[in-house]
Amino acid sequence: MSDSIPIPLVAASVPRLSGVLPPVLTPFGEDLAPDPTRLAAHARWLLGQGCSGLAIFGTTSEANSLSLEERERLLEALLEDGIPPEVLLVGTGCCALSDTVRLTALAVRRGCAGVLMLPPFYYKGVSDEGLYRVFSEVIERVGDARLRVYLYHIPPISQVGITAQLIERLLRAYPEVVAGMKDSSGDLGNTKLMLERFGPSGFKVFLGTERLLLAGMRSGGAGCITATANVNPAMIVRLFRDWQGREAEKLQEEVNVIRSALERLPVIAALKSVLAHETRDPAWRTVRPPLVELPAADSSTLLADLERRGFAMPGLPA
Amino acid sequence: MSDSIPIPLVAASVPRLSGVLPPVLTPFGEDLAPDPTRLAAHARWLLGQGCSGLAIFGTTSEANSLSLEERERLLEALLEDGIPPEVLLVGTGCCALSDTVRLTALAVRRGCAGVLMLPPFYYKGVSDEGLYRVFSEVIERVGDARLRVYLYHIPPISQVGITAQLIERLLRAYPEVVAGMKDSSGDLGNTKLMLERFGPSGFKVFLGTERLLLAGMRSGGAGCITATANVNPAMIVRLFRDWQGREAEKLQEEVNVIRSALERLPVIAALKSVLAHETRDPAWRTVRPPLVELPAADSSTLLADLERRGFAMPGLPA
Repeated sequence: MSDSIPIPLVAASVPRLSGVLPPVLTPFGEDLAPDPTRLAAHARWLLGQGCSGLAIFGTTSEANSLSLEERERLLEALLEDGIPPEVLLVGTGCCALSDTVRLTALAVRRGCAGVLMLPPFYYKGVSDEGLYRVFSEVIERVGDARLRVYLYHIPPISQVGITAQLIERLLRAYPEVVAGMKDSSGDLGNTKLMLERFGPSGFKVFLGTERLLLAGMRSGGAGCITATANVNPAMIVRLFRDWQGREAEKLQEEVNVIRSALERLPVIAALKSVLAHETRDPAWRTVRPPLVELPAADSSTLLADLERRGFAMPGLPA
Repeated sequence: MSDSIPIPLVAASVPRLSGVLPPVLTPFGEDLAPDPTRLAAHARWLLGQGCSGLAIFGTTSEANSLSLEERERLLEALLEDGIPPEVLLVGTGCCALSDTVRLTALAVRRGCAGVLMLPPFYYKGVSDEGLYRVFSEVIERVGDARLRVYLYHIPPISQVGITAQLIERLLRAYPEVVAGMKDSSGDLGNTKLMLERFGPSGFKVFLGTERLLLAGMRSGGAGCITATANVNPAMIVRLFRDWQGREAEKLQEEVNVIRSALERLPVIAALKSVLAHETRDPAWRTVRPPLVELPAADSSTLLADLERRGFAMPGLPA
């Protein structure tokens, strides 16, 4: 197949995302309802720190713990609050085709830059043919030339991955729509393989962790979509901007020092704990079940550890 | 904990389900929309074959490929069609707490016998504390004394299981509501453990496969909720009814002969293929992506194999 039909080249004029896009944490109230006001404040702070976009409704956003309506309302609220749709990469991949179509169509109608699409993740061991049909049905049903799909490969959590064969087939059929992927396999070898095979035709590959950002950029990566960018965006943005500079290795090491403190703990709860402390808003600690907030003792240890490592969050909303 | 606070005994007057409950296959149209009319016809046939209840919206029903609204409309359509709510065990466990609450509340309001509740299945490695909060929030928010929850333990697919510790804690808090479980671990040892620990307090345990039905009944099981009961209900019902009889071992072997032919293939597609053939309605073959229908050649081989094994589906709707 590779030899007979080449993957079409996409014109450079088709806009694509790049840079550091935090998968934005979702704040909840005591009643576990998502809070659009605090979400918008956090989103604005992230953009102010230099993030080129916002990946809302990702894994770190606890999006899979939100109903479709809750996600729709949050998206509308962010836009009403003045967050520009051009910076939004919206997580829209659900288990049900009908849900994915509905949320994707809304994101496109509102002018969002792209959607980050999980494959359906309940049934395991599904075929590439079945996954092709999912993505192709969504693209056909949304039926909008503005749609840009970024495929979400996160096998440690979804257990259903996106293979190179699947991407190749999708790119042949929808070269302008299938814009890229987020590779959260944690396997740089896989990222490099995707970049070698599909990078030349304009396909963007985001790293799923800033730990691999420098190595990924050197292989042609587009940036990273990483949980810890919720609390450490400026430093990661600096590494992204200066990855070709003389300080790049040093910046990568500094970024790793902060990440190391955070990733020893359940990361969503840890990030929310940091944000609660830094914004002096204890409600930020709340996660939706099945997740559990960080125990107070772990939180104190983490905060002290981060302080020792020189961590700071400047200019947070009061 | 086991020694200090006993699990409350539940009065024998609190009704509980038992017997053979097929996880009812969901028919789709060419446009992949679920078809309530053919669903109701299939449901009536299953009841006519002696099934004591119907587990709608299970794994075999492709329920996780349906939106919340699609499930709500199908439930309402079945009831409008005259299927009695007292026979319905409704799959309501979603990834989002808000969805699970809404669907569970509807099932209770409509008088359904119980709900079969998956844990949220996106996040992996979650704690029993997190899962306890999910089930307890749902029970509290639905807030209806008629609610009967059957926990759905299917680790091969959900990857998030239900431990004995979790059940014990739920039973102490909600002894009348937490009515039982479906054990689809495929591990008879686990089923026996659950029956030994929780059976005496009235907790019901359904086997997830008829292959373990006789052994499970001998250990105090309540029956089975098994995919293949969609096409072979009468034979499995007979085994359930006669499990203490002299012919039980022979009946179990006969049941296994049919199951063996079906389980070599992707079972949902295989069952739909059989139903399409037997009802002369090719639309029954349709599955929703990410599943894929059985290739025609596999279907022919399966049907021939079943015929050799003496398989029949008497009295199907025309």
